[in-house]
Amino acid sequence: MTTVGILGGGQLARMMALAGAPLGLRFLVMDTSAEACAGQFAPMVVGDYRDEQALGEFASRVDVATFDFENVPAESARWLADRVPVFPNPRALAIAQDRLAEKTLFRDLGIPVPAFATVDSREELEAAIAEVGAPSILKTRRLGYDGKGQFRIRVAADAQAAWEALGPQAASVGLILEAFVPFERELSVVAARARDGGFVAWPLTENWHVDGVLSASLAPAAVEGGLARTAIEHARRLAEAMDYVGVFALELFCRDGGLLANELAPRVHNSGHWTIEGSETSQFENHLRAVLGLPLGDTRMVGHACMLNWIGEMPDPAMLLAQAGGHWHDYGKTSRPGRKVGHATLRAPTPEGLVAALESTGRALGRGGQVDPVVARLRGA
Amino acid sequence: MTTVGILGGGQLARMMALAGAPLGLRFLVMDTSAEACAGQFAPMVVGDYRDEQALGEFASRVDVATFDFENVPAESARWLADRVPVFPNPRALAIAQDRLAEKTLFRDLGIPVPAFATVDSREELEAAIAEVGAPSILKTRRLGYDGKGQFRIRVAADAQAAWEALGPQAASVGLILEAFVPFERELSVVAARARDGGFVAWPLTENWHVDGVLSASLAPAAVEGGLARTAIEHARRLAEAMDYVGVFALELFCRDGGLLANELAPRVHNSGHWTIEGSETSQFENHLRAVLGLPLGDTRMVGHACMLNWIGEMPDPAMLLAQAGGHWHDYGKTSRPGRKVGHATLRAPTPEGLVAALESTGRALGRGGQVDPVVARLRGA
Repeated sequence: MTTVGILGGGQLARMMALAGAPLGLRFLVMDTSAEACAGQFAPMVVGDYRDEQALGEFASRVDVATFDFENVPAESARWLADRVPVFPNPRALAIAQDRLAEKTLFRDLGIPVPAFATVDSREELEAAIAEVGAPSILKTRRLGYDGKGQFRIRVAADAQAAWEALGPQAASVGLILEAFVPFERELSVVAARARDGGFVAWPLTENWHVDGVLSASLAPAAVEGGLARTAIEHARRLAEAMDYVGVFALELFCRDGGLLANELAPRVHNSGHWTIEGSETSQFENHLRAVLGLPLGDTRMVGHACMLNWIGEMPDPAMLLAQAGGHWHDYGKTSRPGRKVGHATLRAPTPEGLVAALESTGRALGRGGQVDPVVARLRGA
Repeated sequence: MTTVGILGGGQLARMMALAGAPLGLRFLVMDTSAEACAGQFAPMVVGDYRDEQALGEFASRVDVATFDFENVPAESARWLADRVPVFPNPRALAIAQDRLAEKTLFRDLGIPVPAFATVDSREELEAAIAEVGAPSILKTRRLGYDGKGQFRIRVAADAQAAWEALGPQAASVGLILEAFVPFERELSVVAARARDGGFVAWPLTENWHVDGVLSASLAPAAVEGGLARTAIEHARRLAEAMDYVGVFALELFCRDGGLLANELAPRVHNSGHWTIEGSETSQFENHLRAVLGLPLGDTRMVGHACMLNWIGEMPDPAMLLAQAGGHWHDYGKTSRPGRKVGHATLRAPTPEGLVAALESTGRALGRGGQVDPVVARLRGA
């Protein structure tokens, strides 16, 4: 009997536990909140990730550990890795936690990336704006403490306001200036790398965000094959460079027919939720297979799939469940504005069938605005 | 938040809980053993089904109750139904627990059934053999206490031996003599009926048994459409007659191109496990949808599927997981001879693909004997 420990007990841990049960696995989830939704289907250790006593109890009860959450302190991940196998490795986690390290890695690997520059002082901000240009975005390198991690610089004269907003965090979490990219599409590669170096990727996914939060994902993305191959090759190179084990997502911008790397998520990813029904093997199962040294599963599509995120509160499920190919995912959370509380996946054998399902779902749930851009894409607009 | 109570905590309850989590449901399982495998993913009440205190605690913590196990005492089901909604209804459960009531219902509904006769005494056994003929099988009507519930009568002279074996149970659980049917195929209909009377059935499944235990299931069964329609019509009539709510299975024998009803299972069924990957909606999810009054999901196939049962102990998963379209289901049980400890489902887009997957799996796991009859059927032998 193998017990997998998961740091973070949100919906990703919950879906991982549900996917791992058929593999005969047991789970132990660690979270700072006893209300974490994964706790409805797995035992929990409640505690701060920096609390060595809680972390020690967690380590003593698991055979292998992984994450549902990339902002577990890197030192906690290293502490844990001295006691139990941890996948992905703490170095990969640390890179993904630091926008500068991440973008430097992209550049070092020859993966195109928007212009960026590090900013440690007011003077460096001026130099960075001169180098990167405007519009651009000043961001904290690591997770900020107050949730205010970004400031948009429209013209060079915005530098002072940007510094007033984020300068105080320069010493603690670091700052980075990134060029603003007026992209045409947002894409993601969700991929898995095994302990033995084996690599698989799901078909490229197109994503739509609203207010910075993922709203809809379509797979396979309607892009030409060369672009998809390039994106997957970028993901493979990244995974190899980090000796990554498990599932991760590489978010990309598509502009003028080319790709620019945006961000690496060192975990199963919201843009891969459609794989539960839309692929032969889900991202959750393949993450566990990778972490456990089992063969990776087939990532081929089973039909065409669109995922719709439910933010804030769950819609009435009955209308969606009455839809052929409609699959419901309620995370068992309480409602709260801006919170990801669930998603639905529509699966259909053909793109035309998916259009019909999306239109009918949009009407039934009053979610036309959410499905319209996906329908337009499927229609080739 | 809705909590579904399940009487019985085996693999059926476990797979039901895993299927219900995405619907936002919580579960409470009642079982006589604290080791019941559903308890790995759901809280439990441990107690005898006849213990009103345990049953009362269970009732007080659930919104609706159902079964993973048809031999919950009918009086316990009725006691529970006075306190909380119970689906399927206790009358349906009582019919399915009694071979005589079940076969009488089949006959009353015009569903062909092997010849049978009730046996309450040594004299009635003689009369029954005269009526039903030999070979035939003397069986207990309800679950016997010692697990010895059947005696094969090859010739009329076996009557005395049969009576010595089962006669002592005639007064407690009743006996029935059933004609032995040298069938060509065993088929099953797995179907769901909703609270509002809506009815859906999965495509007909062909089953192979070894030593009386299910070994393999193939869906869709390779039978002509008229036979499948008749089988599903039988299931629909049964469900309506019992005002059944939830998923059930009707097992049938196929002989000389016709159907004979064998048995009704008032629950999700081993021959429907392939629906997890092989159908748009699994039997576990549709059972919950039915019980909760939600719309029933689409039962169409997603490819072609074969389920292989693992009896006694689990094979090494790695070979199966390396197989495209191979899906693993370890119930988290300890090994024991004759015990159902898990299953695998192979899914492929075409029958030819399924043949290839079965042959490769048979070789890899040393299970040629288990897959050969299915391969022969798919090849039209």
